[in-house]
Amino acid sequence: MKLVLAIVGNDDSGMVSAALTKEGFSVTKLATTGGFLKKGNTTFIVGTEDDKVDQVISIIAGQSRRRTQLVPSTTTMDIGVYSAFPVEVTIGGSTIFVLNVDRFEKV
Amino acid sequence: MKLVLAIVGNDDSGMVSAALTKEGFSVTKLATTGGFLKKGNTTFIVGTEDDKVDQVISIIAGQSRRRTQLVPSTTTMDIGVYSAFPVEVTIGGSTIFVLNVDRFEKV
Amino acid sequence: MKLVLAIVGNDDSGMVSAALTKEGFSVTKLATTGGFLKKGNTTFIVGTEDDKVDQVISIIAGQSRRRTQLVPSTTTMDIGVYSAFPVEVTIGGSTIFVLNVDRFEKV
Ligand code: NI
Ligand code: NI
Ligand code: NI
Repeated sequence: MKLVLAIVGNDDSGMVSAALTKEGFSVTKLATTGGFLKKGNTTFIVGTEDDKVDQVISIIAGQSRRRTQLVPSTTTMDIGVYSAFPVEVTIGGSTIFVLNVDRFEKV
Repeated sequence: MKLVLAIVGNDDSGMVSAALTKEGFSVTKLATTGGFLKKGNTTFIVGTEDDKVDQVISIIAGQSRRRTQLVPSTTTMDIGVYSAFPVEVTIGGSTIFVLNVDRFEKV
Repeated sequence: MKLVLAIVGNDDSGMVSAALTKEGFSVTKLATTGGFLKKGNTTFIVGTEDDKVDQVISIIAGQSRRRTQLVPSTTTMDIGVYSAFPVEVTIGGSTIFVLNVDRFEKV
């Protein structure tokens, strides 16, 4: 038995949660205050058999991998003309810790 | 030293917290958002000596074990007659992970 | 790789967070409801290389070690005279668990 502790940005946490649940994993979400990702994040606790750790990591990565995105950006010039151009920003990214479980009980 | 991480339904978390504290265990409760139990739950962190893990699990189980309860249920029939009869529902249930502690410090 | 789980009183959690971040550690803070410290506390998750565990513990201890402080205290006497005298109170104190990380992924 392993415990997967994953820190997922809030933009992706809904999709991560849905994807894990759909595949039959029990997911507990902890409210996170602040954190090392700028926008706030959610900490997931997922208990799983050893041989499904790869699948859990793959699901989390699939829904939250660090990626770039083009977003509109606006610059105002002196003469009152607006110029909107796309800027590439990096979003997403998760940090995943896998811990050994010494004992597991469901009561 | 072990760290017990227990996910307890909110119906039972007050009793679990009180029972652990009464027996002298240090309890930290994490706010949990959503989760695999329907009604919301609380994640407990309890640090304990190896030989007291059984006691911690027994206390948590004693206050939160999955159990059935009869609740009133109402059915309305066509002819305007109400029938209230008890329905058996399952409540409670906790998930408990025990982790090895590599090092423990109180400062 | 180690995961440091530290429960820090809310009086000190801002300083602990700032000091860890300044030294380059990735810090995740979990909202804690109640707990074994009277005033509420914050649970920190810090992932770190094995050889930096001492540094992490030292930073946390340096900002949150249990200590005494003199605070003003006021007694009102029968004859309407106030006497303000300092009282020594204990503040701070953190509980730190270090866990082995079986696998670590940043995606
Ligand atoms: Ni196992
Ligand atoms: Ni031990
Ligand atoms: Ni290591």
